[in-house]
Amino acid sequence: MAGKKVLIVYAHQSSGSFNAAAKDAAKEALTTQGCTVEVSDLYAMKFKATATAEDITGDVQNADHFRYAEETKLAWEAGKLSDDITEEQRKLTQADLVIFQFPMYWFSLPAIMKGWIDRVLTLGYAFSQEKRYSQGVFNDKKALLSFTTGSQESMFSANGINGDMNVTLWPLQNGILHYCGFQVLSPQIFWAPSHVPSEVRSTMLKGWRTRLQGILGEEPLAFTSLDCFDREKGFQLKPEFHEKHAAKEFGPTVGTHLGKPLPPHNQMRAGS
Amino acid sequence: MAGKKVLIVYAHQSSGSFNAAAKDAAKEALTTQGCTVEVSDLYAMKFKATATAEDITGDVQNADHFRYAEETKLAWEAGKLSDDITEEQRKLTQADLVIFQFPMYWFSLPAIMKGWIDRVLTLGYAFSQEKRYSQGVFNDKKALLSFTTGSQESMFSANGINGDMNVTLWPLQNGILHYCGFQVLSPQIFWAPSHVPSEVRSTMLKGWRTRLQGILGEEPLAFTSLDCFDREKGFQLKPEFHEKHAAKEFGPTVGTHLGKPLPPHNQMRAGS
Repeated sequence: MAGKKVLIVYAHQSSGSFNAAAKDAAKEALTTQGCTVEVSDLYAMKFKATATAEDITGDVQNADHFRYAEETKLAWEAGKLSDDITEEQRKLTQADLVIFQFPMYWFSLPAIMKGWIDRVLTLGYAFSQEKRYSQGVFNDKKALLSFTTGSQESMFSANGINGDMNVTLWPLQNGILHYCGFQVLSPQIFWAPSHVPSEVRSTMLKGWRTRLQGILGEEPLAFTSLDCFDREKGFQLKPEFHEKHAAKEFGPTVGTHLGKPLPPHNQMRAGS
Repeated sequence: MAGKKVLIVYAHQSSGSFNAAAKDAAKEALTTQGCTVEVSDLYAMKFKATATAEDITGDVQNADHFRYAEETKLAWEAGKLSDDITEEQRKLTQADLVIFQFPMYWFSLPAIMKGWIDRVLTLGYAFSQEKRYSQGVFNDKKALLSFTTGSQESMFSANGINGDMNVTLWPLQNGILHYCGFQVLSPQIFWAPSHVPSEVRSTMLKGWRTRLQGILGEEPLAFTSLDCFDREKGFQLKPEFHEKHAAKEFGPTVGTHLGKPLPPHNQMRAGS
């Protein structure tokens, strides 16, 4: 772990929150192991969440039909992205591990953190048509979501009212992290900390500190390699891989499930 | 349709975009039918995306440990939410139908629209422990997601690399819309309009206009009623409903799938 660089992207309004404590625990545990830790404290930074033409210094290419992805790609190539984006990209480029620490809002990221995703993961910088998924730009980096929920764990099960947490995690872990190539580590989920006694919250933080001791050695979650999909046929799974799965009980992943039952824990645990 | 009120929450930076054309088509088609249509043009309004203490006029209850949901609930009760939130809540309260028009960013809403969700759907106003899902606050209202993708449709299938669009829609349609009680209409998905000839884009818009003629008469997507879950057992499906599904091929919904194959089109088409 020594010498490794870690970026914690953190979104909570209050330094007295459980999320703040989880962020502080990570910073301390990783620093103690010799890592260099940077924290992007989004609310404290008053991080701009909205993707606008102001993210580009100087004129845009086509003001009449402004297209954010294409315009920011050009700006990135020309070194004309706004300073706040450039600074986050510097931190991200240097990082070996990125931890996103947040309270889950509406089954997803708080808007301020979604804004970090929308604005910092610029086309060209973080992905391209060629560099995606297992061939993604950040495939030498690891990332993980560390978050609190408002609901208890049972509600987020495959027979609970919120539905299987694996389903809720798919767009975040596959559609953002793995899309950019990150090796996605198991999420660190703190179930409803505001509804449990303080001793239980302490135990949760202790578990997180323990996990952080070996976190860079963890096996990442399993996704299907880009090679298995046929680019000429709209990135559908190649027939040989379909056949390989025909006799299996579960689909390969939560999203690419092939009409089979979802592999249990696929977005929660490595080797699932 | 005459006399019905429609709110279009719209997020695109450019009036020359396909999303703008889809928003304009909806406004025109619905107005022609006698509906009153309001549009919240989030970028034009410079809508604040981030959930902060500034959303509350005057002092907060607990500044040391600021908790957004609880503080905004108190502010809503006391009429102390910021003017921009209050104005959006007025539009939403009056609406019979809410259309969210946006380009899909990272398998989800653009941050500015997520900010509308995070800030406008205040605890107490839009949901409570008692009023959720099929017993939700807005269960006399309809809502739908109308969005463009960057990827082609095949990539978002159950054997495509992005995974089944039904999975990606679950957190949005169940976790936000249905959570607040909305009857969720089938999503209007414009697949990769920027990668097709302009005639195809025109055909897409024509299909949207046609759909809008009868949109308030559409059957909503199927979710499992709150009554089917046992509040005393962490909102898990009651045994009698488990049994009812035991012999069936598919689980009841994408999220509450009971370890069975997902019901095809569950988040895409009514009656699935």
